[in-house]
Amino acid sequence: MLREVALDDIRPIAIGAGILGTGGGGNPYLGGLHLASVIRAKGSQPLVDPLALADDALVCVVGNIGAPTVSIEKLPEGKEMLRALRLLEEHIGRQFDAVAIAEIGGANSMQPLIAGLLAGIPTVDSDSMGRAFPEIQMSSFLFGSDATVTPYALVDAADRAAIVPQAVSDLWGERIARNIAVSMGARAGFASTIMNGAQVKQAGVHYTMTLAHHLGERVIEAREKKSDAPPVVADALEGQLLFRGKITDVNRRTTKGFARGTVKISGFGPSRHPPIALGGTRGVLEIEFQNELLIARINGEVVVTTPDLICIVTEDDGEPVTTEALRYGTRVAVIAAPAPPQLKTEIALEVVGPRAFGYDVEFTPLPGGVIGLGPAE
Amino acid sequence: MLREVALDDIRPIAIGAGILGTGGGGNPYLGGLHLASVIRAKGSQPLVDPLALADDALVCVVGNIGAPTVSIEKLPEGKEMLRALRLLEEHIGRQFDAVAIAEIGGANSMQPLIAGLLAGIPTVDSDSMGRAFPEIQMSSFLFGSDATVTPYALVDAADRAAIVPQAVSDLWGERIARNIAVSMGARAGFASTIMNGAQVKQAGVHYTMTLAHHLGERVIEAREKKSDAPPVVADALEGQLLFRGKITDVNRRTTKGFARGTVKISGFGPSRHPPIALGGTRGVLEIEFQNELLIARINGEVVVTTPDLICIVTEDDGEPVTTEALRYGTRVAVIAAPAPPQLKTEIALEVVGPRAFGYDVEFTPLPGGVIGLGPAE
Repeated sequence: MLREVALDDIRPIAIGAGILGTGGGGNPYLGGLHLASVIRAKGSQPLVDPLALADDALVCVVGNIGAPTVSIEKLPEGKEMLRALRLLEEHIGRQFDAVAIAEIGGANSMQPLIAGLLAGIPTVDSDSMGRAFPEIQMSSFLFGSDATVTPYALVDAADRAAIVPQAVSDLWGERIARNIAVSMGARAGFASTIMNGAQVKQAGVHYTMTLAHHLGERVIEAREKKSDAPPVVADALEGQLLFRGKITDVNRRTTKGFARGTVKISGFGPSRHPPIALGGTRGVLEIEFQNELLIARINGEVVVTTPDLICIVTEDDGEPVTTEALRYGTRVAVIAAPAPPQLKTEIALEVVGPRAFGYDVEFTPLPGGVIGLGPAE
Repeated sequence: MLREVALDDIRPIAIGAGILGTGGGGNPYLGGLHLASVIRAKGSQPLVDPLALADDALVCVVGNIGAPTVSIEKLPEGKEMLRALRLLEEHIGRQFDAVAIAEIGGANSMQPLIAGLLAGIPTVDSDSMGRAFPEIQMSSFLFGSDATVTPYALVDAADRAAIVPQAVSDLWGERIARNIAVSMGARAGFASTIMNGAQVKQAGVHYTMTLAHHLGERVIEAREKKSDAPPVVADALEGQLLFRGKITDVNRRTTKGFARGTVKISGFGPSRHPPIALGGTRGVLEIEFQNELLIARINGEVVVTTPDLICIVTEDDGEPVTTEALRYGTRVAVIAAPAPPQLKTEIALEVVGPRAFGYDVEFTPLPGGVIGLGPAE
């Protein structure tokens, strides 16, 4: 695994985290600039092997909460997350030994590195999704252990702050935090999900920062060699290249705080590329999204569903395409990759399966499914 | 002043607080039933003379936050306010010596009696409005001293909880609390506005529990004697009987969490009653409201504006009529009473004057203006 995150690691992590964002999670670019400025001031940020954590180590999760669209226009003050972390420490009367990652996919990949550096504690190379999801309760730290999202703390750029000591359930914790975040202009630093080391080991999706870095490095390498990037992405995720084509329709509406919609991708036809495992390059691939890409159908038949990963990258250089950037005419490749096993238990599927998002579709897992590299890789 | 609140005091306080609610503040009836059950279990609740508080006594304000309409359907668990008070004590690491009243007008008149009884501390006979207002920052404790609304705590019937340690301003404190209350089903116990005794003395509207009690007793007495109740209300408030007539139009819309609208009252004509000071019984009285009754015009001319009190009572027995109960055909009397001087300073008028509610009208105070009885009465 990656031992620390230095300046040069930011670019590959941003690319890899962007792809793991499955269309959502926000763009890691601005967070990467922020992280670079903090690394220049304070040096590299050490990563901790989750399996090497002491069972009684005290860990919490940090990240941004709000709307990714807002985070592009409303830049952070810079220390929101640190202040949320300190407020939570003050509330419980103990200090954290390390911070873990809420979601490796998208912008929240950078935040635990920034917060850890500012607080002087390492970042655990483990997240709770192995991808991106829109809501707090969609976390393997929560449905995979007896940790709860509360108590948590939110602090915004103007230093407005809130603590929620308890909330009946993690779902209610999400609802209350979402409303508080709205009062804070839809962007706040968020520290939550207090765990001991044993809980992190049990429930986390491990080595996903290392995976994001590895994925990004392979994309950069493919670009430098001018080789075909999409199959490299599929290979790095132990997934498959699902489709290549051109975006021919985007239907998008913003409801209940989500960017919901469908995107249609029409295949290039059989001559353009060698055959591809599932749908290939013929017909139409249609994807339904709610911030993240959730259900993929080829010629009307469901081929991939959440929690398995559906990633759209540009066809020429493997750059991740977020749902808000979907545009008519863009030439893209779609990669499907099996979700980590932590997201595919019965309890997990109640929270992150297709029905949790309102789709009347069964989850049929893709073959394979060990996202995350081993500690030795 | 009243020394304690016993079972028999609940009815007059409910009537008086209803009238002081100026059409808003919620109905004190259900809170009165709740208080009666607590008094039966624990005895009377002592009141403290605000001017007798030690300068370093620790006081906070307790009440319900949410929508009065919800509080009629969603009954309390019973200990929300006590738990909010305890949570706030835990957060600051000190214990309160007494609780003060957020608003004497309406349902929140009962809550500090219930919370004080449950916590085993007295209730200060002082509130921050001398009437009702819809938002937290509309408080003489806040604009009349250097106290701030934060830190505060909210706890709901399901024991969901939140603490807000700081919020930039009292207005932002209101916005965040309102959103949290919405997450809690629009009803929560609320403990806020930590003050010392010196701040209470400086900024409070004193002896308003005693005033509500006195007002209610006089109305009950008028009913028993079958004498004319509306002039008695005007006299008890050192105000004037403004108008008598029949409601002939109600225009009501619920926007941004407020019940906004106008009510038209057509006069009975000159023969019905002896002449009345201002508009009397001729023509049309029109009142604009936002939860509370805020601006009164007689035949198009502004005669009373917030923060001065506009109270509607039934014409026959002086029962307060809240804005949600305004109905075509009801025969009513309208009383105007001068606001306490604490609400009429330049700083206060920025928060509770007509412009704070979006009306392009100057505040022209009614003559007089000492709401609240002296300690000796």
